[in-house]
Amino acid sequence: MGSQEVKLLSFWVSPFSKRVEWALKLKGIDYEYIEEDVFNKSHLLLELNPITKKVPVLVHGQKTIAESFVIIEYIDETWNDQYPLLPQQPYQRAIARFLANLVEEHVMKPAFVAMCATGEEREKAMNVIREAMYRIEEEIKGKKFFGGENIGYLDIALGWISYFIPVWEEVGSLEIIDPFKYPATYAWMTNFITNPMIKDTLSQRDKMIDYFHNMKREYSST
Amino acid sequence: MGSQEVKLLSFWVSPFSKRVEWALKLKGIDYEYIEEDVFNKSHLLLELNPITKKVPVLVHGQKTIAESFVIIEYIDETWNDQYPLLPQQPYQRAIARFLANLVEEHVMKPAFVAMCATGEEREKAMNVIREAMYRIEEEIKGKKFFGGENIGYLDIALGWISYFIPVWEEVGSLEIIDPFKYPATYAWMTNFITNPMIKDTLSQRDKMIDYFHNMKREYSST
Repeated sequence: MGSQEVKLLSFWVSPFSKRVEWALKLKGIDYEYIEEDVFNKSHLLLELNPITKKVPVLVHGQKTIAESFVIIEYIDETWNDQYPLLPQQPYQRAIARFLANLVEEHVMKPAFVAMCATGEEREKAMNVIREAMYRIEEEIKGKKFFGGENIGYLDIALGWISYFIPVWEEVGSLEIIDPFKYPATYAWMTNFITNPMIKDTLSQRDKMIDYFHNMKREYSST
Repeated sequence: MGSQEVKLLSFWVSPFSKRVEWALKLKGIDYEYIEEDVFNKSHLLLELNPITKKVPVLVHGQKTIAESFVIIEYIDETWNDQYPLLPQQPYQRAIARFLANLVEEHVMKPAFVAMCATGEEREKAMNVIREAMYRIEEEIKGKKFFGGENIGYLDIALGWISYFIPVWEEVGSLEIIDPFKYPATYAWMTNFITNPMIKDTLSQRDKMIDYFHNMKREYSST
């Protein structure tokens, strides 16, 4: 397995791409990073992922895999002798997969809306987030990482929260994750971004602030 | 594992619930079927799946699992000594998972819209479906089932196509899956619904026609 070349088509601020970068780094897999301009997609991306046309795309020898959660499972199954990402027990695996999907729909999407919108639209989004965040808080309570002592699948899936949410809070002038309501999640966010494997991989905060100010302006104009 | 009670909260016309029914039947797992009224949700459902509040929910002893794809992976990993559902190779598993998600977004959602809508909205939905269906056609070409000689994970994930699409075509007075454009998919649809394990599990066609006529009316009035 290790002899085949690994390439990753990524985009600097994509939370989905970052998951795959983290999985590769945690597994100690060498790979070529290919930065993609998602506003002017390359022929390579359109050829490799012709239907959804999205990053991340992992190329492993002759094989191409898209969609971050699918790629992470592929990485975990292919390099299965080093640094397990998913838990070992079927029920723990099911919870990790369920919560990964839940946060995608019930935190990521509404948190973006909350940043961009105001009034009733923002309030509605915040209510959706609240319910999911209570569940996440319950899950992380008493643990350093969702994976226990080490970063695992759910940490990778939810890792964007640790550095996107503070940016979105600043851009939207609002509080999404109240440290008094979600103290364990808040502590996890710090544990995650200060982890030696993670801290140098994060997107630049200044660039992110500019990027999401633009996104917010676009959202408001449509 | 086999000694713990298995219960399934389901809804007769849910394509998601049906996947879990099929997985349990293919594995030969005894279970209690609990019909849920999704328009008047039971306390049990709200207690077991408080955030998304959706069927299917699988209860296995003290464990509760929601979301059809998560449940199927749980079933495959827990009863791993009988009738494997997912392929064995990581790359084949990745393709199956990718296509399962792709069809959810690029066939199921737009096909429902195509049934309900007219004019430009229908045309737009049909274009999305077309691209994904070409990919599916390529995948099933030369095979009886996506799983090869036997029904596997992707057959379960896409099984709804075989009996929902003809109903949606009738209700919407349109052709979604043209047998001349997608002959292998068309042949698979017949293979699937005539399979001895599947044929007696399908939702009643007459009831489905009524149900989706109502859904279409509701869609048009909003």
